[in-house]
Amino acid sequence: MTEPPMEIEFSSFGEKLREQCGILELMDDLGKALTTNPDMRMMGGGNPAAIPEVQQIWRDRAAQLLGEGNDFDRMLVNYDPPAGNPRFLEAVAGCLNRDTGWNLQPGNVAVTCGGQTAFFFLFNMLAGEFADGSHRKILLPVTPEYIGYANQGVSKDLFTALPAIIEEGDDNTFKYRVDFDNLEITGDIAAICVSRPTNPSGNVLSDTEIARLSELAKQNGIPLIIDNAYGNPFPGAIFTDATPVWDEHVILTLSLSKLGLPGTRTGIIVASETITRAISAMTAVVGLANNNIGQTLALPLLESGEIIDISNDIIRPFYRKRAEEARQLVTDAFDDSTPYRVHAAEGAFFLWFWFPGLPISSTELYRRLKQRDVLVVPGEYFFYGLDEPWQHSRECIRVTFSQPMEIVREGIKIIAEEVGRAYRQ
Amino acid sequence: MTEPPMEIEFSSFGEKLREQCGILELMDDLGKALTTNPDMRMMGGGNPAAIPEVQQIWRDRAAQLLGEGNDFDRMLVNYDPPAGNPRFLEAVAGCLNRDTGWNLQPGNVAVTCGGQTAFFFLFNMLAGEFADGSHRKILLPVTPEYIGYANQGVSKDLFTALPAIIEEGDDNTFKYRVDFDNLEITGDIAAICVSRPTNPSGNVLSDTEIARLSELAKQNGIPLIIDNAYGNPFPGAIFTDATPVWDEHVILTLSLSKLGLPGTRTGIIVASETITRAISAMTAVVGLANNNIGQTLALPLLESGEIIDISNDIIRPFYRKRAEEARQLVTDAFDDSTPYRVHAAEGAFFLWFWFPGLPISSTELYRRLKQRDVLVVPGEYFFYGLDEPWQHSRECIRVTFSQPMEIVREGIKIIAEEVGRAYRQ
Repeated sequence: MTEPPMEIEFSSFGEKLREQCGILELMDDLGKALTTNPDMRMMGGGNPAAIPEVQQIWRDRAAQLLGEGNDFDRMLVNYDPPAGNPRFLEAVAGCLNRDTGWNLQPGNVAVTCGGQTAFFFLFNMLAGEFADGSHRKILLPVTPEYIGYANQGVSKDLFTALPAIIEEGDDNTFKYRVDFDNLEITGDIAAICVSRPTNPSGNVLSDTEIARLSELAKQNGIPLIIDNAYGNPFPGAIFTDATPVWDEHVILTLSLSKLGLPGTRTGIIVASETITRAISAMTAVVGLANNNIGQTLALPLLESGEIIDISNDIIRPFYRKRAEEARQLVTDAFDDSTPYRVHAAEGAFFLWFWFPGLPISSTELYRRLKQRDVLVVPGEYFFYGLDEPWQHSRECIRVTFSQPMEIVREGIKIIAEEVGRAYRQ
Repeated sequence: MTEPPMEIEFSSFGEKLREQCGILELMDDLGKALTTNPDMRMMGGGNPAAIPEVQQIWRDRAAQLLGEGNDFDRMLVNYDPPAGNPRFLEAVAGCLNRDTGWNLQPGNVAVTCGGQTAFFFLFNMLAGEFADGSHRKILLPVTPEYIGYANQGVSKDLFTALPAIIEEGDDNTFKYRVDFDNLEITGDIAAICVSRPTNPSGNVLSDTEIARLSELAKQNGIPLIIDNAYGNPFPGAIFTDATPVWDEHVILTLSLSKLGLPGTRTGIIVASETITRAISAMTAVVGLANNNIGQTLALPLLESGEIIDISNDIIRPFYRKRAEEARQLVTDAFDDSTPYRVHAAEGAFFLWFWFPGLPISSTELYRRLKQRDVLVVPGEYFFYGLDEPWQHSRECIRVTFSQPMEIVREGIKIIAEEVGRAYRQ
């Protein structure tokens, strides 16, 4: 292809969103690795594991749709209302109410094209530029926080982030805590946002921490957004006793991705009707409607509550066992002369490594690992919105352990070699 | 549910996008009618017809995916790269090249979560606020134009629109033409955009009109965006000899929706790599990745070129016949004393009525029809970005004829009654 005959000029919105950014690099590498480089050990993405029992459930469900009446046709040939399919909204509210005792109405639920889009909508409708000329921000009280949020602001400086407190534990583990002493809700804070379990660290905020954050949000008249993409009551990739929380000022997001359906892009928002109505309007304007496939596949499992059983009986044990195995592989692979730390495995499916005093940046480590066909995510990308530089942000990498164990084993071995080499160089 | 304990404040972005808007009202009515009011005659939406031969193709394809290897599992359990699945991009480029003689590379193709999202990205990255402080607009040279664009601007006043020239024909028909005499590309125009066939009118810009618009865009160093959601070479809901057009300064959008897959939300952008790269970045930031289902279902049909045959041999004849039948129903139902006009049926699947001198607004007509279980779209929503009020904009309605013919027959009869009554009142 020859170059375009003219220079395309992009608007501020265009320039902002098309910047080279962490999430794009990650998704490009992930996608290319999966589709064009079969030798790459994919430990970079948030792809869930292909759990045979779970995949069989979706295969059976698809076969059922093809078999009965015209349900399959209807799924493909119709547009849903922008909030989501009414039966699906009702099923989500019912399932959550039965499991948690909440009193949700279908109007408290809205669907988006995946969890990432839910956050694009929520962040930009709650923060940024206001009609009164003010600029407000999303407070991330526990940094590192999810890479995917970093570039979502339509306006600049959407986030203000508080470094987590690092608690060191036994056996080269550590854990992040909320630094409540330094947590201040100033007038320019539009909302508080946490992921629970936290992507990338696998940290799970305790019920006490969540209660304090919720109370702070309520007192200040702002929402608390809880990203529950890996959490309770579904998909259940969480290994601590974390109670699901919802309230009128809480915006809870869930997803079908970690139930084995990332390819369907189905995000779920549970919030006050003021919020769900705004989300619905945004879906209509930005995308007309959501895709129907994930909702249709999951509908009877939500209506019956089977989705909770799958989470408790298949998803959670699978990832807990994986987390333990991956941790053992780390112990086996790393030499004691390498000063490594791994975050406590409380949820999700990542090893979050911290290499104190690492002589190279984590981005350089990422490049060296990619040369050796191991794809990880450099930690830098998960630290944004900070007021001051933080050395810790250059010393971490995120490593997915959802892929086949042979790949995880090889990958961890290569990581240990390259990290050891970096310290010795 | 009790009311939220606090007042949610929305940002300017939030207020702008959640405004009560045409597309939201349309999608809400459409969705509710389809799912909760079985008596509503759905003549409002852009839902394609359920064409049995086409639906069978997708059913067979799904069964094939379930049968062979782990293709079905892979579709559900993996994230694609943000531009779309590499094999799909290659298949789209190859299919279009074979049919049109273009020389597209896979890098000239990008997927979005439906065509609507493609336009949200394109409009906002090409127009709106610029870093230099300027404000630029999208020029719509043939108004009325698609309702779904109207509220997509992140910033205000995204569009400037030129009223079409009305050519009256025989048998109560009329046709829109581009008013080239009054078409001026001023310095604040960022791009030109047309839909072809035009939604709502079913107008198809002639090859000559498209060539003039393309030349104007090129001379002024701006893109020409052609929304080909109903057009050639697929899905083929177009009844004139309209040659598909692409060039380095042309941004062509296609969709799988009118091939019977609206529920999968699969939009396709064909453009210079500068544009497709920006689209890919936006998909990553806004939604992480696209859903995989539409791409996976359609892949072999693009690779084999069968999708063009389906368009030519099934889709086009189906909608052409429907258009003729619907037009006959109009002739039968309307009394000659009612001064109605219908736009020439050149493509898409709408009757675009014009009622000269209608004593009530088209919105009032919409309400009266809804009371009688007939859902249409009031014409007002398709006229935006105009400098001056235009009486014509209050005298039109859009009526879909893709639904079962019995519904279309009843609907047209009721429309004729209500319109007649409005003139006589």
